[in-house]
Order: sequence, then structure tokens, then C-alpha cells
Amino acid sequence: MIPDPPVSLWPDPEALGPVTDLYQLTMMAGYIAIGRDRDRASFELFIRRLPKNRVYLVFAGLEQAIGDLLRLRFSSEQVEEIRRWPIFRTIAPPFFEALEAFRFEGDVWSVPEGTVVFPGETLLRVEADLPHAQLVETFLLSSLGYPTLVASKAARIVGAAAGRPVYDFGARRGHGPHAGFLAARSSYIAGFAGTSHVEAARRLGIPAFGTMAHSWVQAFVTEAEAFEAFAQVFPGATMLLVDTYDTLAGVRQAAAIEPAVRAIRLDSGDPLELSYRSRAILDELGRHEVKIFASGDLDEFEIARLVRHEAPIDAFGVGTELITSKDAPALSLVYKLVELNGVGRIKLSPSKRTYPMAKQVFRSRDATGRFAGDHVTCADESAEGEPLLVPVVREGKLVAPLPGLDAIRDHCRAQLESLPNRLREPEAEPDYAISYSDALEAEADRLGLH
Amino acid sequence: MIPDPPVSLWPDPEALGPVTDLYQLTMMAGYIAIGRDRDRASFELFIRRLPKNRVYLVFAGLEQAIGDLLRLRFSSEQVEEIRRWPIFRTIAPPFFEALEAFRFEGDVWSVPEGTVVFPGETLLRVEADLPHAQLVETFLLSSLGYPTLVASKAARIVGAAAGRPVYDFGARRGHGPHAGFLAARSSYIAGFAGTSHVEAARRLGIPAFGTMAHSWVQAFVTEAEAFEAFAQVFPGATMLLVDTYDTLAGVRQAAAIEPAVRAIRLDSGDPLELSYRSRAILDELGRHEVKIFASGDLDEFEIARLVRHEAPIDAFGVGTELITSKDAPALSLVYKLVELNGVGRIKLSPSKRTYPMAKQVFRSRDATGRFAGDHVTCADESAEGEPLLVPVVREGKLVAPLPGLDAIRDHCRAQLESLPNRLREPEAEPDYAISYSDALEAEADRLGLH
Repeated sequence: MIPDPPVSLWPDPEALGPVTDLYQLTMMAGYIAIGRDRDRASFELFIRRLPKNRVYLVFAGLEQAIGDLLRLRFSSEQVEEIRRWPIFRTIAPPFFEALEAFRFEGDVWSVPEGTVVFPGETLLRVEADLPHAQLVETFLLSSLGYPTLVASKAARIVGAAAGRPVYDFGARRGHGPHAGFLAARSSYIAGFAGTSHVEAARRLGIPAFGTMAHSWVQAFVTEAEAFEAFAQVFPGATMLLVDTYDTLAGVRQAAAIEPAVRAIRLDSGDPLELSYRSRAILDELGRHEVKIFASGDLDEFEIARLVRHEAPIDAFGVGTELITSKDAPALSLVYKLVELNGVGRIKLSPSKRTYPMAKQVFRSRDATGRFAGDHVTCADESAEGEPLLVPVVREGKLVAPLPGLDAIRDHCRAQLESLPNRLREPEAEPDYAISYSDALEAEADRLGLH
Repeated sequence: MIPDPPVSLWPDPEALGPVTDLYQLTMMAGYIAIGRDRDRASFELFIRRLPKNRVYLVFAGLEQAIGDLLRLRFSSEQVEEIRRWPIFRTIAPPFFEALEAFRFEGDVWSVPEGTVVFPGETLLRVEADLPHAQLVETFLLSSLGYPTLVASKAARIVGAAAGRPVYDFGARRGHGPHAGFLAARSSYIAGFAGTSHVEAARRLGIPAFGTMAHSWVQAFVTEAEAFEAFAQVFPGATMLLVDTYDTLAGVRQAAAIEPAVRAIRLDSGDPLELSYRSRAILDELGRHEVKIFASGDLDEFEIARLVRHEAPIDAFGVGTELITSKDAPALSLVYKLVELNGVGRIKLSPSKRTYPMAKQVFRSRDATGRFAGDHVTCADESAEGEPLLVPVVREGKLVAPLPGLDAIRDHCRAQLESLPNRLREPEAEPDYAISYSDALEAEADRLGLH
């Protein structure tokens, strides 16, 4: 008898409720047991510290987070199984009924997706009944942190490329097979020109980009034969990978192919030297129109070096460094209770302090339109500048349709163009002013923050 | 009118075919177009280099990878959309028909999940028709690389904890909401005692672990009130987080609670000093049975330091460092064509060389049963030691049921116990011998590798 394949371990998108930490459920059970489940809570999401090498961040992941939040459910089967866990043996039926009946019915305010943001300022606020606002913590953090990490890394890479298109090649190096999809979307928001990820391209309308692997070349007796075959199958879209055996010989080989190749790809060795030598060979053979594409362990520092030395490279492919945000693979994104039944709440743990009260963030610009500083206030204060947080969900329903991917990308481009020059270089140091209103400082003082 | 929530961006587990790089499809189209689609190919998966701080790796993710591989399909809708992409405009119908008809019908050999492995040795081999063996590359790399990274990091952490239980708290810091599930499974294989991830615990039968967040304490007027309420709701399972305001005052508070608490959790500050001082307070108050649990940015180096100083900590929770494999967030896992129609193939790109031919790996042990070295041979050679690669899939069907999670975990424990002592410390240097058979070297010479 042939064994069945292992069951799928993908989540059911209609039953994502238990994609959370157990303590969210124990606290929910607790609040229900002591009759605190209709307390009204405000939780805020913010970043504690800039990751290594970052001087600003690009907020991303909101569309998927909100969609999943509004669909968040527990199936009967999930609830029945959780009910049997020893930790819940003292818990009365109303908790389990509440899980089965769960729908997110609170409000969400958020900074729009694609916005440039900084640590210490509120990015998103959930206002809901205490157990519901608490329950969604893990889900929101895991849905928003990674896209924000990737979009922030991607913005640096796009900046370093100085106008040359950059493509996402990260799918194989993602933390699991879903990360590639999220990274394709996040990097496109931050200005990448396209992705190699077929499903992301198909579902999100991102330009798909792909050429050939070394294995194509290896599958033929000679490199020339491999190149000829590819050019016959994809006339007009022929991009040849030239480094399977000897890179410069590969360039000569590619230049000789008919119908004419569009581009060559360099994937190993020093791209600065190889791009100059490849360009010289192509030009010498009259192939001025053939473009040079570089990939292989590139990051923003290497791309900036290539651009500084005017390497004749027309486009870049970035994989590992983008999709793992390799120099800074974690973001200190947190979600904290700031207000309960209209009263400010804080936490005092060493180096983990938070400001109380529901907040708004106002961004000022200088005379040239560049970002000049952010001012954090209580939600009901007004101040100069543009308020960053806007209502997204009210009583569990979208306030307005969320922007499409291209609108998010346009917003992000405008945001990045408004960055002060001092924050633009890969080597820039953190230097952006965040201030807090007098009312917020007074409330913090009152609760013992200072 | 209330807008609909954004559509789900989760993948359809029954249509994961396009979760791949575009070049896998262009090459498949190419092989079909030139009549090479029935060539028989062997591709092998291996690790090029040890990541930073790692001296061995734990192979993980096989069960999910194989399950998804055997379910890999393209829906009609996906194929119809891909067909309209400009790059495929010169491609004849047989390619699109092949996508719609795609089923993985090849063979897979693999090292069992939970096995200790090293760079430069074959971990998995796919033997199939050339376009099919090629197509699954991206999927296999993204399905196996991340679990292997996490299991490898987890094994180091478990080793450093020297018998104290360690729990996975990483869900919120994963690269997207699915990474937490994969990390819970991978860390459990490598010896973690449980996870905070509810859905991973439920579906995989991993012990679930959870306490309370700071927000629970903040939701009450006093810490004492917060602790009392929790103890009433969870008598017998009360673990109290003591660092919301003042850690040592929190410990005194916790010690006074009735019914008696089981444990306290320290989540900030220096866990070495705080654990000693907390233990002293608990003992002074006669609460000898109350355990101390530590969490908060722990990694294997910090845990080793705490263990070395005999910190009175009974268990650890590890989040960010585990789930992002923060010191080494990427693995140089690759999938290379090694044999085509019975003939060896290689790639010569600088620093990316591969050995040709389908291979087997034989592992020797010393007189005490510890791993003494691995010997890589052609698949049809025999050698001393235990052959690591076993048949898993034959003609698209499982050869035998895959082991369950506890069996994988037991296998992993036995593997880790067989590591030479010199590879066990967090600061160990790479030092393990991999050799290649004369036949393999001769074949490599013939193809120009040396």
C-alpha cells in the first residue's frame, strides 16, 4: 500500500485565530472570567529602536494585516481542541464561546502603507474591547514587522542604485515559502522594478522578471549550444547567464548569438571589474545595445560602490540580502496598552518605557518640502503639520477601500523623495527629531515615567 | 456602502506551483520547446558554507517540503494568466498543457529530518524529467532552508541550556505570520520543550506554553490586584510576570499570592543578577518551590553565561534570536544539476564549484560512537559507515510513511548526542572532516573541476 503524503501544514486563511501566542488566550480567558471583557482598551504599535544601518523605516504590510484581521476566526474544531488543554481546565464556557464567536469589531487607526516612519512614534492603534485588542497582538506584529523590514531594506537598495532598476530575486532564501511573496510585495512598494516570484507577480500585478539558471547551460554540451537554444525559444527576450564556466568567454559567446541577445547576466566574481570588461567586449563586437545585469550577494553598500565607480551595469538583482534583511533581520516592533477606559497606562520595565494615552503623530516639512521632524501628541490634540494616523477600520468594517499596490508605491516614492538629504546615503547616521507634546509629557510624569 | 476587506494573500495549498522563480518556468518552456523534456536529471541540494557561529547544522523541514512537493499543482486560472505574459508569447501550447498536467512523478532521496549535516555533502537528491526536477528548485530551497536554519540555531540554544527546558516565544518576530509555525516545529525537533504558538501546538502536538503579558498587569490599578486575579483564574498554573514596574518588588508581590504561584518570569534587566536576587527573596519568604523563568533577548551565548554562573533559572524562553536565526539569518543552501542522462554535470563559476554525479554520504563513528567524519561517494559506490541518504519518494509516491514529529525529535537528540565534544560549545570552531571518493574526484577531474 502506498502511504498518503503528509498533510498540508499551511494555515487555513479562514481560521487564523490560533496563529498567536498562548498568553493572548490565557489573558482573554482571564478578562472574561473576572468580568473585564467589556473594558475599552487602546493598544499602540510602534518601533523601539532603529535596526543596524537603518536611519528611517518604510511601514508596509498593512493591506494583508487588515484583511486577515477582519477575517480572523477560530473554527469549532480549533476551539474544541484548545478547550481540552490542561491550562484551560479551570475556565468556564463563556471563554470558549467567545472564541467561537470572535469577530474583530474594534477600530484601527494607522499610518498609510508606504509611509516613512521612525522609532518612538505610533504607527497603528487598535481600540477595542480589552480581550479582543489583546488577542490580535501577535498577529499584527508578525504581519507588519517583516514587510516593514523588507520595505525599509529595499528603499536603501533602490536609493543606492540611483535610478538603475532593481529586481527581487529572493524567493529561495525567504524564511519559509510564504516570505518570498511578502518580500516581493514589500520591495515593490519601496521602488523595486519587479520580482522573480511568479505567484506574487500574478496575484499582485508586479512585473515578473526571469532569465535562466546555470543548470540550463550545464544541460547542453557547450555553452554556445545552450545560448543558441535559449535565443531560439525566447527571441526578443534573451538574457544569457554568462558565468557558468568562464565569464569573459561567456560574454563573447553571448555576443555572437543570433537572434541578438538583449542582455547578459553576471552572477559571480567582482561585478565592477567584470562589468567593465564585459562592456568592452560587447562594444568591441558592436553589441552596444546589449545590457548588463548583475546579481549574486549584492546589497546596498556593494551597489553604491558599483554606482560610485560608474560600473556599466544596467540593472541589479538582489536576493538574500533583501529577503532576510540580512544585516538587520529583526525589528523591535511592539504593541502596548496605552489607555484603558479613557485612562493612560504605561509600563516601566528598564529600557522598555512607553508613553501613555492614544496618540497622533504630526509631521512637519521644511521650506523645500523635506521632512523636518515629527511631533507626537495625545490623539485629541492638534498641532502643526500633517497628521500621519488615519482611521482605517471602524467597528470592524473598513472605513474606505485601502489603496491599491501602485498607489501605495507612488505614496512611498513621494515619501522617500521627501527624506532629508542627510538620511539618504547607505552610510547615513540616525538624525531625525521626534518630540512629544506637553500634554503627553505631563501624563507620563503623572504615571511615573520620568 | 461598506467596502469589502482586502482579499486574502495567503497561498492556496492546492496550487503552489507558481510559488517559484520565473526562470524555472522559462527553462521548463525551453526544454519542452526543444524536445529535451524527457531527459533524465539528478539535482542535488547541499549547503555551501557554514553560517556564522555554526559548526554543524540540523536538517529540518522535510515533512512539509515533501507533502507540498507531492501536492504541487498549477490551477487553470494560474496557467491562463501566466500564458498571457509577454515573455511567453512565443511559447507553444505544450508548455501550458504541461503546467496544467503537472504532478511530481520523480524520485527523491534524502537525509532523514533531524539529522546533523555539514556543508559540501548531499542532503537531498531529486531524480526526474529535466523540467520537473528544475521546476521544484525554488520551492525546495525555501521549504528546507529556513527550518534547517532554525533547527540548527535551536540545537545550539538547547545545548547551552544544559538540561534546563527552553521554550519558543518567537511567533511575533517571524518573517511573516507563517514563520512562527515553521519555527515552532523546527525548534521542537532540535530539543525545545514547547512553544507559545497556539496553532503549532494544536496541529503538531507540541506542548503549548504561555503566561501573561505586561498589559495584564497594566490593566489593573495595582500589580498585587493583577497577580491575585490571574491566580484566581488559573490556580495551579500561575506564572507571574514580575518586571512591569519594579522587578524585585514584583517578586515579593508574587510570593505573597494565594493560591501559591508556580513560577515567576523575568523579561528585562540582567537575568543573572535578577535571578539570584529573586531566588533569595523567594527563599527568604519560604517559596522554595516557586520556579524562575527567564526571557527577553536571550541567545545561546547569554544562556551559556547564565548556566556557567549557575544562575538560579529553571527554564528559558527564546524569541527573536531563534525565529530569525539573528546572527546568521541566511543559509547558502543550493540545488544543482549533477547528472543528466547518466552523465556528470558541473558548474565552474569562481567559488561556486560543485561535484558531479548523483552521490551518497557515508558517516563514520569513532570507538565511543561519536561522529568521526563523512565520506561522499558516487551513489552506486559502497563505503564504510552509515549511508545518510535514503529513498523517500519513488515515481511521485512516498516509499514509506514519514516519521512523526516525536520520532524526528528522538532521532535529532541521538544525532546531537553523537557530536564530537569539540563541536558542542557555543564558541566551537568548525572542525569536521568531509572527504570525497576517488571515483568522484576522478569524475570531477575529467570535467575540469581541478
